[in-house]
Amino acid sequence: MKASGFCFEVTARDGAARSGRLATPHGVVETPAFMCVATYGAVRGVSMPVLEGLGAQILLANTYHLHERPGEDTIAGLGGLHGFSGFGGPWLTDSGGYQVTSLADRMQLDEDGITFSSPLDGTRRSLTPESAIAIQEKLGADIAMVLDVCHRPRPDAKESESRRMREAMEQTLRWARRSAAARSRPDQAVFGIVQGGLSAELRRTSAAGTVDVGFDGYAHGGLGLGEPRSQRGELIEAAQAALPEERPRYLMGLGHPIDLVDAVAAGVDLFDCVVPTRNGRHGVLFTSRGRLQAKSARFRDDPRPPDPDCDCATCSRVSRGYLRHLLSIGESLGAQLASVHNLRFTLRLLERARAAIAAGTFAALRREVAALEDARV
Amino acid sequence: MKASGFCFEVTARDGAARSGRLATPHGVVETPAFMCVATYGAVRGVSMPVLEGLGAQILLANTYHLHERPGEDTIAGLGGLHGFSGFGGPWLTDSGGYQVTSLADRMQLDEDGITFSSPLDGTRRSLTPESAIAIQEKLGADIAMVLDVCHRPRPDAKESESRRMREAMEQTLRWARRSAAARSRPDQAVFGIVQGGLSAELRRTSAAGTVDVGFDGYAHGGLGLGEPRSQRGELIEAAQAALPEERPRYLMGLGHPIDLVDAVAAGVDLFDCVVPTRNGRHGVLFTSRGRLQAKSARFRDDPRPPDPDCDCATCSRVSRGYLRHLLSIGESLGAQLASVHNLRFTLRLLERARAAIAAGTFAALRREVAALEDARV
Repeated sequence: MKASGFCFEVTARDGAARSGRLATPHGVVETPAFMCVATYGAVRGVSMPVLEGLGAQILLANTYHLHERPGEDTIAGLGGLHGFSGFGGPWLTDSGGYQVTSLADRMQLDEDGITFSSPLDGTRRSLTPESAIAIQEKLGADIAMVLDVCHRPRPDAKESESRRMREAMEQTLRWARRSAAARSRPDQAVFGIVQGGLSAELRRTSAAGTVDVGFDGYAHGGLGLGEPRSQRGELIEAAQAALPEERPRYLMGLGHPIDLVDAVAAGVDLFDCVVPTRNGRHGVLFTSRGRLQAKSARFRDDPRPPDPDCDCATCSRVSRGYLRHLLSIGESLGAQLASVHNLRFTLRLLERARAAIAAGTFAALRREVAALEDARV
Repeated sequence: MKASGFCFEVTARDGAARSGRLATPHGVVETPAFMCVATYGAVRGVSMPVLEGLGAQILLANTYHLHERPGEDTIAGLGGLHGFSGFGGPWLTDSGGYQVTSLADRMQLDEDGITFSSPLDGTRRSLTPESAIAIQEKLGADIAMVLDVCHRPRPDAKESESRRMREAMEQTLRWARRSAAARSRPDQAVFGIVQGGLSAELRRTSAAGTVDVGFDGYAHGGLGLGEPRSQRGELIEAAQAALPEERPRYLMGLGHPIDLVDAVAAGVDLFDCVVPTRNGRHGVLFTSRGRLQAKSARFRDDPRPPDPDCDCATCSRVSRGYLRHLLSIGESLGAQLASVHNLRFTLRLLERARAAIAAGTFAALRREVAALEDARV
């Protein structure tokens, strides 16, 4: 099955990096693109009109969280994610596998699916490849993700590591087949997920197997869990060699500037991450001059904007002194203003990446971001 | 001393109700007007561009809170309240007397002023009529308030009540004289505060004495502390009889719809209250059909806007179902959207009051609001 209303075309290349256009039933996404995380259907503290003003093209919500509250039937009744949230652009829903497998001892995994106690009320719940697709069809996402098994490397159990990594990867593949068979909505794209832990060979096998099943796009799952930057690059490249050029590729859950440009350089098209909003709430701002710890007493009397080179609503109107004050007293507007800046910074970085790829200057942008990695304002 | 750059003119009357224009160095306020409360220089969770879009004409901050954090020197260095906050319209600062006298056992009051332990770090601090003016001059408010003594009636000490009420009123008057003498900023208006507890006679005496000192405007303090609606009306009218027609009158701290129209009917021009934002955070919305408990499960699947007759950003884009979801999960966007609605509702009520006074139909508006007082959506 292939979703209708979807079309991905690569419009420019610069080395392995590529820019393109992903058409969905709810609008076009210029890639490489960052998806702002709206786990429960809302980006924390940031309203939809503000998000649109920041240039957010596509949002990400979580199947598992929305299944728990308010439930997919309620959302379907309110017009799906688009009508429910008021954001009419494209939505992608993560399947919830990553979140559910984080529940550790509350979670039981078998061939059929995942059973777990709800952290909310202890109720036993389950998620299967089929139910994850069914929920996402009700949510009305433009792009759904298959249910996967994310194996987290445990440093204290080295001998069994490679066996566990392989098992999780194979389980993910078997579930990918069931997910593909469960699809019933012709207007919803579904992406497969590559697993394989820290083994390049397993990732290549996983990618090839997932492509055999056939999806509208492919994601790298289970990365950003502490592996070194260079190793991550190798793992992405290993998988990517087995992925078709004409399908979008999505790196799940990473969003630091350096992670984004590294992956764009390897040919990744889509990203999502809570880092811009989570860092914002904690007063850590990405800027064109490096990281800024906005709560620092150094900024108490500083009239300059957080990032003088930024065009966001925060930087065009708010001083470091005012932002520090709001964050220091725990006023929620501080978290909101910092989140707005970090989201705009991230979205603008991807805008710049798209322009740089078109101009053949992406390597320079990547060097610029890498040079800022350890800089502090 | 009379502040320059200020001018108040009554432009229409309807019974005792009046509408007018209060010109300040940072812009004109159409009265009767509601001042959104930005205690620490920010309305909780609502950004300045959004506030401006709601029609906020003037904001209120608190001297005592800003003196504690970040301090008046920091704010002065960042361009006063206007530059610091990014809201360039008029600001009024409350003196902090009400807040400091709420500290009860942490607070000591004598002829000189109020000494108290900071709730933040236990440091001994003091506020005198002179220091309250000096701090407000540094904050750069367009309108400053004198330091007053707000006596809270104690039902368990009836015999001494009238003595205490009189003492607080007389203390406030003596401090009013010192406040007036302490003024040094020609571009800052200062309002005196009428006290007198629940005695109409004391309130009349207080008003007459405060007018003798001479201020740019006059406020009713110490109301909204549990007295019945009818008694409050009598107390306001008693004081108002001694207040000059050509000066603005401000009822401090009340903001329920019924309180606003009652006081407008008595000729009050200015209001402030945390009720719109506090209620919003708790999911209680004022609407044109009555109070709406937005967290109620009844609204889970309700696609209608919170208030179908409202023109705010929330009601034009958000369903009851979505708002209920956000408030239920404790997502801060829910509090923000509800606060935005309640602020707009309140600001619009005052807009309607101004139009009704000009049209001679204010009594009908007051009846409409009174009829809604016990209505629930």
